[in-house]
Amino acid sequence: MRRGRFITLEGGEGVGKSTQLRALTAALEARGVEIVATREPGGSTGAEAIRALLLEGSDDRWDARSEALLFAAARADHVARKIRPALDRGAWVLCDRFVDSSRAYQGGGGGITDDDLLMLHGFGSQGLLPDRTFLLTLGADEAMQRLAVRDAGEADRMGSKPADYQARLAARFMEMAAAEPDRWCVIDAGKAADVVTRAIVADLEVWL
Amino acid sequence: MRRGRFITLEGGEGVGKSTQLRALTAALEARGVEIVATREPGGSTGAEAIRALLLEGSDDRWDARSEALLFAAARADHVARKIRPALDRGAWVLCDRFVDSSRAYQGGGGGITDDDLLMLHGFGSQGLLPDRTFLLTLGADEAMQRLAVRDAGEADRMGSKPADYQARLAARFMEMAAAEPDRWCVIDAGKAADVVTRAIVADLEVWL
Repeated sequence: MRRGRFITLEGGEGVGKSTQLRALTAALEARGVEIVATREPGGSTGAEAIRALLLEGSDDRWDARSEALLFAAARADHVARKIRPALDRGAWVLCDRFVDSSRAYQGGGGGITDDDLLMLHGFGSQGLLPDRTFLLTLGADEAMQRLAVRDAGEADRMGSKPADYQARLAARFMEMAAAEPDRWCVIDAGKAADVVTRAIVADLEVWL
Repeated sequence: MRRGRFITLEGGEGVGKSTQLRALTAALEARGVEIVATREPGGSTGAEAIRALLLEGSDDRWDARSEALLFAAARADHVARKIRPALDRGAWVLCDRFVDSSRAYQGGGGGITDDDLLMLHGFGSQGLLPDRTFLLTLGADEAMQRLAVRDAGEADRMGSKPADYQARLAARFMEMAAAEPDRWCVIDAGKAADVVTRAIVADLEVWL
């Protein structure tokens, strides 16, 4: 059987990645595709244990290098135990965040070079990259509004950073998308959720 | 003030590293040296949390690459939060296992190349190496005997491997010592504990 497709959703906080993950799963399953929907950090038993170390505790719990190694360890487990086995049996894997989030968060904001992050990814996950990455974008004002209405109890070490941090993050994602246009597809997430879902499915039509 | 000395104890299971760490700490403190005694995996708050992930659970809980990344993350935290600050204020750091244990266990037995392990160490801990490493060696029969009398409750994912594994590990340590004779000092740990301690202190005399 043909290897499955590996599709990731990327973007800052509040752009609707988890909503789109659920909607895409339903839309693609309705087309007869076996979908494995997952997310990072976490997604496998070992990676979820590492996720707890990454998201709990104070902002300065980890220095940037320890944090980058923990993300790489979690991703290596997720790839080895869940993503590759699913792709190998022909399923499509939809993942909310993957290595590009490390490149944006630990790279752009965290002071680790992109080369080092890709080196860790090459070691841990044999450099596995998605077949297609959808970057969900929102104007800064709308992203902050959406975040403000979220339950404050959901805030963790990764979320709730100031507005200029979110703006730099958005710029970093756009740079990565521009550098690899064959893999990335930029989607305006300011439209209604069902319109966004249809735009993503339309892009994937060639593989259906 | 002169930077402190970084000294590690290495070797297989049951060679007496933790006994020697305590005895050396007492002997060097009696000479007026500030000693920070520590161990790996662990040694700092974050690294101890990662240690729990590494030592608990079944043998196949982690694949080799995730495990190597977790060791590198724990070591990066240990170096950044405990070892470097101690060395910078002039203390001597005595550490039970360090990167050479990763090179012997994840490298020799675990199928990860030495280059990859040193690359992870270069990224996470800026490649920090000890000033002096004491390799405690025992004949295979004696090491197994010592292990057999240990409390069975102490066995974890890293200990209690078969005899041929311990023999390969001992050979790997000897290779590393031979390759870097200026850093390593091989000590016969079959002698009485106080004789071993005096041999190590005698070697360190030049720095006292």
